[in-house]
Amino acid sequence: MRAVDIIEKKRNGNKLTEDEIKFMVDGFTKGDTVMDYQMSAFNMAVYFRGMDDEEATWMTKAMLHSGDILDLSMIKGVKVDKHSTGGVGDKTSLVVAPLVASLGIKFAKMSGRGLGHTGGTLDKLESIPGYNISISQQDFIDQVNRIGIALIGQTKSLVPADKKLYALRDVTATVESIPLIASSIMSKKLASGADVISLDVKVGSGAFMKDLDQATKLAELMVSIGKMCGKKMSAELTNMDEPLGLAVGNSLEVIEAIDTLNGHGPKDFTELCMEVSAELILDSGLAKSHSEALALAHKQIENKEALHKFVELVEAQGGDGSYVLNPDKFTKAKYVKEVVSNQDGYVTKIDALAIGHAAMYLGGGRAKMDDVIDHAVGIVLNKKVGDYVRKGEPLAYIHSNKEDISLESKCVFDAYKLGKDKIEPKLILKVVK
Amino acid sequence: MRAVDIIEKKRNGNKLTEDEIKFMVDGFTKGDTVMDYQMSAFNMAVYFRGMDDEEATWMTKAMLHSGDILDLSMIKGVKVDKHSTGGVGDKTSLVVAPLVASLGIKFAKMSGRGLGHTGGTLDKLESIPGYNISISQQDFIDQVNRIGIALIGQTKSLVPADKKLYALRDVTATVESIPLIASSIMSKKLASGADVISLDVKVGSGAFMKDLDQATKLAELMVSIGKMCGKKMSAELTNMDEPLGLAVGNSLEVIEAIDTLNGHGPKDFTELCMEVSAELILDSGLAKSHSEALALAHKQIENKEALHKFVELVEAQGGDGSYVLNPDKFTKAKYVKEVVSNQDGYVTKIDALAIGHAAMYLGGGRAKMDDVIDHAVGIVLNKKVGDYVRKGEPLAYIHSNKEDISLESKCVFDAYKLGKDKIEPKLILKVVK
Repeated sequence: MRAVDIIEKKRNGNKLTEDEIKFMVDGFTKGDTVMDYQMSAFNMAVYFRGMDDEEATWMTKAMLHSGDILDLSMIKGVKVDKHSTGGVGDKTSLVVAPLVASLGIKFAKMSGRGLGHTGGTLDKLESIPGYNISISQQDFIDQVNRIGIALIGQTKSLVPADKKLYALRDVTATVESIPLIASSIMSKKLASGADVISLDVKVGSGAFMKDLDQATKLAELMVSIGKMCGKKMSAELTNMDEPLGLAVGNSLEVIEAIDTLNGHGPKDFTELCMEVSAELILDSGLAKSHSEALALAHKQIENKEALHKFVELVEAQGGDGSYVLNPDKFTKAKYVKEVVSNQDGYVTKIDALAIGHAAMYLGGGRAKMDDVIDHAVGIVLNKKVGDYVRKGEPLAYIHSNKEDISLESKCVFDAYKLGKDKIEPKLILKVVK
Repeated sequence: MRAVDIIEKKRNGNKLTEDEIKFMVDGFTKGDTVMDYQMSAFNMAVYFRGMDDEEATWMTKAMLHSGDILDLSMIKGVKVDKHSTGGVGDKTSLVVAPLVASLGIKFAKMSGRGLGHTGGTLDKLESIPGYNISISQQDFIDQVNRIGIALIGQTKSLVPADKKLYALRDVTATVESIPLIASSIMSKKLASGADVISLDVKVGSGAFMKDLDQATKLAELMVSIGKMCGKKMSAELTNMDEPLGLAVGNSLEVIEAIDTLNGHGPKDFTELCMEVSAELILDSGLAKSHSEALALAHKQIENKEALHKFVELVEAQGGDGSYVLNPDKFTKAKYVKEVVSNQDGYVTKIDALAIGHAAMYLGGGRAKMDDVIDHAVGIVLNKKVGDYVRKGEPLAYIHSNKEDISLESKCVFDAYKLGKDKIEPKLILKVVK
């Protein structure tokens, strides 16, 4: 087998075999039979020609077998995991994980740290003093067996093929390929060993996928890959034409998650948490219908079991659980300043990326991998899409540790689009199963 | 400027600027700002999205300026050059070059050696004892000024970008891209400094371009690039559904070229030599019409001036001119064996590549760059497309220095397709100006 022939076959629009895809992924990961300049040409051919469900599954499996596969067989019961393609203000895992775990479903999640406007789930958790994301694989398994939940950092050897491939795609304009995105996400999800997986594919101007058609294709392909690998799959397509919830910034988002676990979170964020939890509950076999699963999810909020499971998680990983019970303890930013509207009208859109960038400029996210995150800073929206705002009323509050926030204020101000007509925002656009 | 943005722009189907193309070619040639894995992704994007005439011209110019440009300004008069995309039995330069030079047109040609079924022009010339292809640039210019003609090997520094780019395309399945092929050929033609350029684009099963549409696009693009760079251009699209002429093999082809210079070459080969010469004569301003140019070309054969110019060339480059005047002096292969027909019928096709491969197996071409060529061996066709052949009649003669030629005989035998109806072969399919 030669790389050049496989590239040509894909370039000409033909379907590859499992062996050919394995040859490309293995050869590239080892760096012997497939050179990086061949893999980048292959990726570009895949960008143009695509891959069918089977090819994408073979691609996923080849990447999966390039590194350690987490053996969760020592954990009893159904193991679940969730993944979001990344949105501004997305703190869903912080609510969903303790909620389903409080029902006896095992939630064993490894997250990457990643670059971005705001920190990832790991950075958010680290705003709780003492929370340790680096625990050994054995301790991880023991913790899940003991309390049903663990949220830790990804080990280095998990899917090295994906790490190497993503770095190459990033500098060769081949990130935006649905089969490559799908196999990248799914190889990591499968490597982490769960039986039931829920995916949240963000759609809109603030998301990686800009339109619903493309996002639907991505969701369908990932669900298909998961099923071919014997997993129970569900995917929600959710709107990213405004940030999720009100809080954007690390400890601010943890506080919002705690509010939600207490039953008084923002409407859109609460809705998504309930929906994702319901899918996981249903696929785990704890409910017979979606409505029954949804009722169970709500019950775990009302009876505070989800909240107490979160306290248990934080304390199991060395964190101070009293912060969860009393969020006033979180370190506050020095300054809180208003961004006010200069006109009357309905909010029709809030550019989520612009809000994310403002949070990053405040110090809440990383532009480079070695940037240090300021957990206290961020933005709390006062108005969401569909709300009426009067001239002079605050649109949002900026939590900052620096005095001059003219750039960030402008960013947030410009992110808001106002109009005459009230728009009814729709968060969950579609469910793919 | 960043390579990834330029790749993305082309990937999305947008037209690049001259600066962007220059950035890619320069950065790749130097190996600093554009990595090979980025260039291969770029090439694949070009494969799918193409380039318009302007972009291809900028690509050509960027490659051209990556190395030495031969300064032929010290040569007086119009300088011409020709290029063929490569066909089996193609020895056109050996006739056209002395023919036009005998009219006072300066023919200054540098050839690459290359791999392939049979040797290139340089290998053919080296079958004349003493012929030296490696002469200095100054001697090259002096010789063209003195006798109007020189045929030498390419210097290493001519278009290094093309050399590096071609090596990359070869292993990344991006050879078959019309703008990349056109810019590769044209950068070398422009680097060699001619004012008038004639191109011969081979079409058919035995050629790189399999169909007339694609070949026409390539010819039109190369003509357009040349014109944008201020050159007089012409291109012939010629049929490669059988070898050109009768002889395939190095000294066998030189002998056929000498026959043609003596006025008794094969019909198809003579026709092509006259056509290419006429285009060069017309574009050099020595004739007012194509028919006048064609008449001039024929005259130079009849009055033997073309033949004597060839002797002059051979002697100027250290070769033994008596071989040209008396081709019987060429070393003969030890064995000449017939390949006979096993049926009656008209020859409808001769697979040129198969004939070329048979010549290579005999030792007449290179499979690897360091293979040594046997100049005496090869194949001489006895029947061409349109000829009637009887069972037991020879189709071709194999000139060999080894006794067992069962493989080569089978190759040649299988190359011939016979049918009931006479086909009238057409050599020149189209002229692009």
